[in-house]
Amino acid sequence: MENSMNFTQALQWRYAPKQLNGNAVPASTLGRIIDAAHLAPSSYGLQPYSVIVVQNKNLLNQIFLKACPQAQIQGSSELLVFASKTQVNDELVDNYIRGLADAKKQPEANFSEFSSAMKAAINSMESNDAKKEWANRQAYISLGLAVSAAALEKVDAAPMEGFDPEALDDLLGLKEQGLSSVVLLALGYRDEDDSYAKQPKWRKPYNEFIQWR
Amino acid sequence: MENSMNFTQALQWRYAPKQLNGNAVPASTLGRIIDAAHLAPSSYGLQPYSVIVVQNKNLLNQIFLKACPQAQIQGSSELLVFASKTQVNDELVDNYIRGLADAKKQPEANFSEFSSAMKAAINSMESNDAKKEWANRQAYISLGLAVSAAALEKVDAAPMEGFDPEALDDLLGLKEQGLSSVVLLALGYRDEDDSYAKQPKWRKPYNEFIQWR
Repeated sequence: MENSMNFTQALQWRYAPKQLNGNAVPASTLGRIIDAAHLAPSSYGLQPYSVIVVQNKNLLNQIFLKACPQAQIQGSSELLVFASKTQVNDELVDNYIRGLADAKKQPEANFSEFSSAMKAAINSMESNDAKKEWANRQAYISLGLAVSAAALEKVDAAPMEGFDPEALDDLLGLKEQGLSSVVLLALGYRDEDDSYAKQPKWRKPYNEFIQWR
Repeated sequence: MENSMNFTQALQWRYAPKQLNGNAVPASTLGRIIDAAHLAPSSYGLQPYSVIVVQNKNLLNQIFLKACPQAQIQGSSELLVFASKTQVNDELVDNYIRGLADAKKQPEANFSEFSSAMKAAINSMESNDAKKEWANRQAYISLGLAVSAAALEKVDAAPMEGFDPEALDDLLGLKEQGLSSVVLLALGYRDEDDSYAKQPKWRKPYNEFIQWR
């Protein structure tokens, strides 16, 4: 119970910073934020996404200039790029089963029913766009867990959409890997001049947000 | 730092239960999980979704029979239904600005630039499907924060897709409210007979998940 009293406080503390001050997030802290993204649940556990951690200042500057001219990029310690699989197909399931069987030291055949169920679910999706969107949504759960971890660590975290995914994919060489960027999370520490830090948090009224049945 | 060491442990503890034992989540605990969903970040803060908390056992049974025949429903204390706006348009922005201006005791006109920027962003999305999907993704961030809060509270939480959204929307009267269900989270406590509880957690290897640049 104590933990989550702290979690509510952490979520009240957090906001989406517009300006970060350039200070570095310690490696151990960063590691725990990444662990949360890695441990996030996903549909069937398929994790149809990866996270690219950009720390190189030259690359961050290229991203700012060519793909995402948002101020948070420049003052960030790290930029997490959530990138989902562009091909959601049987091969995704086969790779997953291979890794799972290997980790559990069992033959892949032991998982054939599970494999078939997953393939049937994926193949029942109506279009390639629907499959990609399914993958994107899973990446957003992972983003949510990274946001949670950052708040608990008192690391500022700015989720960002509205960038140019093709330009970013080019800069990171993602297309060749069958990945495409879907959402970003800039990590760092709020600049003391960031006027957004002083604004009271506003959320839609509780009774418009929640319904009880 | 201490907090998030606990968070990593909480995420290691959690899994997606297949069978819940019917025990009730205390109201204060449930409240903190809902607060996390409510405090979740969303694009521009627009929160284009609501959460319906289903506690009524008859309604849960109807949902099980007609919309989502998954065992977690029957043993859950609550089912959280994340439902996003079916119409993503200027009205969504206007309602948001009205609430924001009211809360900050400022005239709506003070937010006209912000309003225009949000409307431009929404209207630049290429299709109605893209707008709905944008709303759905925001709901998934909120799901991620609810999953995080539940883990910290040691409440079991099963995210669920693969239900019949039209049947569920009918049962909950969501269509009339301009809402459509996108993802579910069953809350409760793992049944001691749930064989999934004993399986080691498996995630894709760290070095396949994370890339450093």
